[in-house]
Amino acid sequence: MRARNLGLVLGEVAGGGPLTRAALAELTGLTKTTVSSLVADLLAAGLVAESPAVRAGERGRPGTEVRLSGGRVAALGLEVNVGSLTACVVDLTRVVRARRTVRADNRSREPGRVLAALDRLAGEVLAEAPSLRIAGTVLAVPGTVGDGLIHHAPHLGWRDVAVSALPSGRPVAVENEANLAALGELEFGDAPRDFLYVSGEIGIGAGIVRDGGLLRGATGLAGELGHVVVAEGGPACRCGSRGCLEVYAGQDALPSPEALAAGGPEAAAACERAGRALGLALTSAVNVLDPGTIVLGGCYVPLFPWLAPPVAAVLADRLGALRPAPPALVPAATGPDAAVLGAAARVLRRVLADPAAQW
Amino acid sequence: MRARNLGLVLGEVAGGGPLTRAALAELTGLTKTTVSSLVADLLAAGLVAESPAVRAGERGRPGTEVRLSGGRVAALGLEVNVGSLTACVVDLTRVVRARRTVRADNRSREPGRVLAALDRLAGEVLAEAPSLRIAGTVLAVPGTVGDGLIHHAPHLGWRDVAVSALPSGRPVAVENEANLAALGELEFGDAPRDFLYVSGEIGIGAGIVRDGGLLRGATGLAGELGHVVVAEGGPACRCGSRGCLEVYAGQDALPSPEALAAGGPEAAAACERAGRALGLALTSAVNVLDPGTIVLGGCYVPLFPWLAPPVAAVLADRLGALRPAPPALVPAATGPDAAVLGAAARVLRRVLADPAAQW
Repeated sequence: MRARNLGLVLGEVAGGGPLTRAALAELTGLTKTTVSSLVADLLAAGLVAESPAVRAGERGRPGTEVRLSGGRVAALGLEVNVGSLTACVVDLTRVVRARRTVRADNRSREPGRVLAALDRLAGEVLAEAPSLRIAGTVLAVPGTVGDGLIHHAPHLGWRDVAVSALPSGRPVAVENEANLAALGELEFGDAPRDFLYVSGEIGIGAGIVRDGGLLRGATGLAGELGHVVVAEGGPACRCGSRGCLEVYAGQDALPSPEALAAGGPEAAAACERAGRALGLALTSAVNVLDPGTIVLGGCYVPLFPWLAPPVAAVLADRLGALRPAPPALVPAATGPDAAVLGAAARVLRRVLADPAAQW
Repeated sequence: MRARNLGLVLGEVAGGGPLTRAALAELTGLTKTTVSSLVADLLAAGLVAESPAVRAGERGRPGTEVRLSGGRVAALGLEVNVGSLTACVVDLTRVVRARRTVRADNRSREPGRVLAALDRLAGEVLAEAPSLRIAGTVLAVPGTVGDGLIHHAPHLGWRDVAVSALPSGRPVAVENEANLAALGELEFGDAPRDFLYVSGEIGIGAGIVRDGGLLRGATGLAGELGHVVVAEGGPACRCGSRGCLEVYAGQDALPSPEALAAGGPEAAAACERAGRALGLALTSAVNVLDPGTIVLGGCYVPLFPWLAPPVAAVLADRLGALRPAPPALVPAATGPDAAVLGAAARVLRRVLADPAAQW
């Protein structure tokens, strides 16, 4: 019960702080005595801090307000991508305290070597934020994940790789990069609480956010948008099948933003083709899932001005008769760091939900 | 608070009854006095009944147990389909007390005339169960629905038809038939609590059940499986687009079970084609949604022995590399009455959740 009430108070502070103890008592329905005792625990754990409350027209001595503290507890977010490794430390107030990324060709590189390099990078960002205590570590990977296992990351060439800790011994939870990028967009971007986040990388994944939470599917494998069928007998996909969205609209099939800005007709045609394929796959996704908004992220962000028109045209053309309007189509606000920020956000969400697990 | 506690007690009785008042107090955390007072209200409203509890080895006088009562409150479920009208009365214990169906060619028939015929049918089933009080009426329609409006039912030829009452004045809530069929399968069939229900009719819809509840999408239009893209430039669909699943695997594209049982090679080939198209669309749906089980319902139930092998083959072929196993594929247990039973079930769920609204 006390653990639950600690989460209740910390949740109110995180959602609507700074707040006085009196306001917290009113919001939670707990007595002021109980709130004071809970706040004392949260202060001792370094999860909240106090600041003087200055309110015009209030009687009596000035009180103090309680706010989240970024001074002690933080999360380590990690990402293995096909072409890079990234690590960041984010404190409880969602301020990025350290962040490093290195280019690395991880295609078909042995998992142990990749994780050793990631471990070194993690050590570097942790050294930049020595005063913070890391409450947990989450690793974003471009593949299907379940029960501490990277089941299949086709673009890394990994299959059934168990990852429960880094070589240095630091425990780590693995999660699909598109799910984490969706969480990153939710926590660090300006997306609504219901959206389909499309992560355009070498592979294409999606994260489904419904009412502020991730919809993960029966076995945690929801959102594999890259393998939605665009053309039954189409070109071979790295997953072993044919005609998946990924072969038409993955990063390898797309021109660079520079080539597009230079006005080359081939680059524009390639973007148009990819956009139409993405529109077809999203038509199927919208028919199944009915998201209110579609957020295009990852490599689709700089390409958005060229990609959005063909995507929107296919959606309007194919969905128009059955629904009042197709979903809104917007670029992600978080850019390439969405997944690694989401990895850190997943840790911070857990701290806020169960602060008692911190001491 | 009292309304909430009435729902709590009735929910326990519905889920695990018959139960003594002492057991109800233990399960709900309420005092025995409070439980007795709540049970008195539920008895007076005819929602529960008492029966003697006979338990071997118990001391003291024999107590009584409380169980759901089918004697007073019931739901009216209605369905407009392309070729039929159906009405049923289902009591609170989920016993079907009356049910009638009439063949009717509702394609392009004026909505007012269809609803008048449905109203007459409703009157007939209500006359068969005169002692029951109807707590609510839900109407299943094969189309997209929102805010009391049938937005588009392409196979009926209806668009933007407002339905809030039958011609006789009885208030009615409209809902998509596939969503209700999924609910019917959940409440009257033997499906697990997480599944994708595929309703094979002239059109094809789907209902998504997650953790025992319907996943309806941001605008209530989730599950439009019939318009998932099978082939971009395929044959024209009645929705105005091309190559939707419906043109390959809707009832009009399928042979009769009799032709299949007779062993005709053309019938078998048609079923194989439809099954492969259904497998492609379900591949996309599984990639997006990751349902644990796929339930094939409606006209797919009698065709299941012929349809399931090509569907399963496509799913295994296209999903095999990315996930440990494709979802289980099973026929629906409820048959053609799934949607009309689900319509009644939606009313009964509301009564169980908020019994105080009944008096």
